[in-house]
Amino acid sequence: MKDLPLRDVYRLIEPGPVVLLTTSHKGPANVMTMSWHMMVDFEPPLIACVVSDRDHSFTALRATKECVVAIPPAEMAETVVAIGNCSGRDVDKFEAFHLTKGEAEKVSAPLVVDCFANIECKVVDTRLVNQYCLFVLQGVKAWIDPARRGSKTIHHKGMGSFIVDGETIELDSKMP
Amino acid sequence: MKDLPLRDVYRLIEPGPVVLLTTSHKGPANVMTMSWHMMVDFEPPLIACVVSDRDHSFTALRATKECVVAIPPAEMAETVVAIGNCSGRDVDKFEAFHLTKGEAEKVSAPLVVDCFANIECKVVDTRLVNQYCLFVLQGVKAWIDPARRGSKTIHHKGMGSFIVDGETIELDSKMP
Repeated sequence: MKDLPLRDVYRLIEPGPVVLLTTSHKGPANVMTMSWHMMVDFEPPLIACVVSDRDHSFTALRATKECVVAIPPAEMAETVVAIGNCSGRDVDKFEAFHLTKGEAEKVSAPLVVDCFANIECKVVDTRLVNQYCLFVLQGVKAWIDPARRGSKTIHHKGMGSFIVDGETIELDSKMP
Repeated sequence: MKDLPLRDVYRLIEPGPVVLLTTSHKGPANVMTMSWHMMVDFEPPLIACVVSDRDHSFTALRATKECVVAIPPAEMAETVVAIGNCSGRDVDKFEAFHLTKGEAEKVSAPLVVDCFANIECKVVDTRLVNQYCLFVLQGVKAWIDPARRGSKTIHHKGMGSFIVDGETIELDSKMP
């Protein structure tokens, strides 16, 4: 994993891939599957996400205010769904799914080395947590596996239906 | 356009497509291109989005608290980018891009008939508007063109690079 400039984080999140979110709090580190997230600002990169208070990760995220957002390649789709189908209350998911932890630089939550990109994040706004379980995260350090940069990702359409990235088209946009 | 149950709105938004957002306020209705949005709750459907205060639509959205989120099919990609490359301050975009307005049922902003789905929305939370331009919308009525249901969409990777939906895979997910 090599350093990814923080200004490039939005290019991973904005397309709307299914991601993994790791936390570390009392007991083994945990990982969940997440699909409700969006960019809020470019640099420093701010990411909003919804982590249900029924999820085991909710307590860890609220208590530690730290997490890692990891981007799994499409090849990991079955594992990503399996991670979403069980709870860290019952299972050490890193162990159960043979995931490789990496040491983060600025947070206690682990990187997921199996993913092609990882974003270390700190919670910077909790005003909408009580009502919507909506956290605002700031990316504080990002990593990419250069050999797998540009990996295809998956997008959740609901009910177990996932879209895999297709072709990329280049258009003359004035937007970053 | 036929009625789409509100409980199905998340299946349009969760995959992270580039969308259009229409508003109506003082002068011709306006439309912008938006890519920073996420689901916040299933039913009633809540959608968070970031509309920059540099965008002409920001003032309209904050003042009227109403908008329509329209989902363009991939075939509209060039028009979607062109809509994003200019401002409603200078251009009547519905006219310039030959878009067809439809009358919404519960909001004053227009539907975009060229899109395959439309979600009429009201702003329900503005606590994060001043700091992040982050609005929480509630979908109050949704529409779909049955003939174009399941249209491929586009996802923005930044700098004019867009991913078109590829194949759909079905996995045994316990998540809605």
